[in-house]
Amino acid sequence: MALVVQKFGGTSVGDLDRIRAVANRIKAGRRAGDQIAVVVSAMAGTTDQLVKWVTQIGGADHDRAEHDVVVASGEQVTSGLLALALQAIGVPARSFLGWQMPLATDAGHGRARIKALDPTEIRACLDQGQVAIVAGFQGLAPGQRVSTLGRGGSDTSAVALAAALGAERCDIFTDVDGVYTTDPRIVSKARKLDRVTYEEMLEMASQGAKVLQTRSVALAMQHGVRVQVLSTFDERPGTLVVDESEIVEQQVVSGIAYSRDEAKVTLVGVPDRPGVAATIFGPLAESGINVDMIVQSVSADGETTDLTFTVGRADLERTAATLETMRKQLGCRQIVADGEVVKISVIGVGMRSHAGIAHVMFRTLADRGINIQAISTSEIKISILIDEAYTELALRALHTAYGLDAA
Amino acid sequence: MALVVQKFGGTSVGDLDRIRAVANRIKAGRRAGDQIAVVVSAMAGTTDQLVKWVTQIGGADHDRAEHDVVVASGEQVTSGLLALALQAIGVPARSFLGWQMPLATDAGHGRARIKALDPTEIRACLDQGQVAIVAGFQGLAPGQRVSTLGRGGSDTSAVALAAALGAERCDIFTDVDGVYTTDPRIVSKARKLDRVTYEEMLEMASQGAKVLQTRSVALAMQHGVRVQVLSTFDERPGTLVVDESEIVEQQVVSGIAYSRDEAKVTLVGVPDRPGVAATIFGPLAESGINVDMIVQSVSADGETTDLTFTVGRADLERTAATLETMRKQLGCRQIVADGEVVKISVIGVGMRSHAGIAHVMFRTLADRGINIQAISTSEIKISILIDEAYTELALRALHTAYGLDAA
Repeated sequence: MALVVQKFGGTSVGDLDRIRAVANRIKAGRRAGDQIAVVVSAMAGTTDQLVKWVTQIGGADHDRAEHDVVVASGEQVTSGLLALALQAIGVPARSFLGWQMPLATDAGHGRARIKALDPTEIRACLDQGQVAIVAGFQGLAPGQRVSTLGRGGSDTSAVALAAALGAERCDIFTDVDGVYTTDPRIVSKARKLDRVTYEEMLEMASQGAKVLQTRSVALAMQHGVRVQVLSTFDERPGTLVVDESEIVEQQVVSGIAYSRDEAKVTLVGVPDRPGVAATIFGPLAESGINVDMIVQSVSADGETTDLTFTVGRADLERTAATLETMRKQLGCRQIVADGEVVKISVIGVGMRSHAGIAHVMFRTLADRGINIQAISTSEIKISILIDEAYTELALRALHTAYGLDAA
Repeated sequence: MALVVQKFGGTSVGDLDRIRAVANRIKAGRRAGDQIAVVVSAMAGTTDQLVKWVTQIGGADHDRAEHDVVVASGEQVTSGLLALALQAIGVPARSFLGWQMPLATDAGHGRARIKALDPTEIRACLDQGQVAIVAGFQGLAPGQRVSTLGRGGSDTSAVALAAALGAERCDIFTDVDGVYTTDPRIVSKARKLDRVTYEEMLEMASQGAKVLQTRSVALAMQHGVRVQVLSTFDERPGTLVVDESEIVEQQVVSGIAYSRDEAKVTLVGVPDRPGVAATIFGPLAESGINVDMIVQSVSADGETTDLTFTVGRADLERTAATLETMRKQLGCRQIVADGEVVKISVIGVGMRSHAGIAHVMFRTLADRGINIQAISTSEIKISILIDEAYTELALRALHTAYGLDAA
């Protein structure tokens, strides 16, 4: 008998019929002999509505602790309704709110971090033959206050619960049926991956593949929780996110992610002297702007150079404004901001032991006449920045070049 | 500096604008120097929606503990939103859920009774100059479960909080501006009462005047909490519900209540022998049917008699069915059920020391040709049952006869 944690997202519990369908799915899992603890999100749309009310009544700079009181109510409702739906089909069940376990967090309301999850009550519930239904996304902050974990926090709740219970697996039910080699809406030959490593999933999540929250993947990796991403709406197995040791025949490249949330800034004619990077990036860091790729071209005249870097597209205006105030100090000729770029990342743990992966990428793009504007690499990832207009062309070409196309 | 508890009902917090209006009202109260603890209901309509979901998904015979988890979310939302609305206009405030105080209840989920309310946290909050916003209707049951107090439970929460804090007053803000001598929609000359005693309010509430829940009035009487009923939507004082000693010049009759929730059952030709009442009313009590008035006519032939009694209109069918199964055993000739009756009650603590109050009632109705079908009395109340068609005529005539008409 295995102990499995199942997490159902907002669309999976979007109305009463879907909650009933989830209950039936859990019942089927129990027939297979598993002990099941469930984590639920709020009904789709509920959290948005509650956040809107909070912002309308409290303004942009509102008390995050009260925000959490209001917003946590969404998961409370679905946890109770799912317990009732299970009972209605003869499956004993009870709900647990964040404060009832408790799932203890720090005081960072609105984006609290988990400090500890006490599984005693949940385990007692499971050992009595009940399904434990946990309201996701919420916890108990110091001073007995309600906290929430931030957007997508229910994934993190589920992984934390699986870790605390030592669960066999954490199944994340969502509206896609797994992790794909790339976005199947763009590349029709994209394949669903049977298995992917934590490291790869982490890179994919942080590079724009929105299947799992980066934070929940990091937590799973830290605690060795085996995560499965699968669809609520069909019965096939999904993608397992596991330790590298569980993957026998590793592909060199596992997936290709892309992100349109990028923007490029180029400082033209910056004096080529030591310390100039600190002058530029210090103030940006202080403003909370994350800089990703940085490319400095070779100085042609030995005196000035061009410096290109990327920031989140949402931060572009603020970045440009910050730089404008420093222009004299920087002594650069021109500041060019470009929001029409895309970052494409080729990801695979096999890169560590294979040479020539980057070369395939550069040649493939060059063959299509696509100019690479910036490059950054990590041990298991190569990211490049290109003109947004070439997104689809580049993704399809790379997918084929790396041998990822479905047969 | 007085400490006041203010309770705002569902229509008072029905949308964001109204919540803002409530916040302004609380701020004005604070300028007057009062410490204010607030109890809020769910936004109007929310509780109905949540109960509907619970019943649709859990069936009629659902787990009341999970019902409470779902339904308590409504007050959670308004407590957080009101705290935010106060903060937005510069008034420090924080929310408290039932489990945070805690307000401890028994395990009677869905209609739990209050065991204890620990005011320590609330008092600390008030002493820090904050407004404490308490989510009404909810508490903490044994086993750290969420409980609710049943419909109208927020009034009870407010009175319990006022008692625990030793508050100067408990203001119940609602959509009417006080307690009237009778229903002003029927009797245009109805007057708002400045003061009414607990006993009178209790009789009025249980006789159909729906301004306050019977239970909250009983709790206020028990703890000597001065309650004021007033309107959220105007600034005038409302009606004070207080101990008799606070009312200097007591009216003989304070108010006239009516209830259309009554039904009459007559057993014709019941053998006139000892024990027959027990034979009839035992089985009804076992079925959970409350019998109110009972009238037995004088036996004309010395052998049989007619027995009339009233039950709640909702119980009429079940009552008739129960009696039908006992018909042979009872030996009565006929069972007549009549749902078209109204109970009218004249209420006043002054009755204790004044004779002739009933006589005024009987003569007034006789003068209008209205037949009295049953009578019951208590120390401070006379109730009669008449044909429902005469409701308005009887109320107006009695209101005048007892000198209650507005000048």
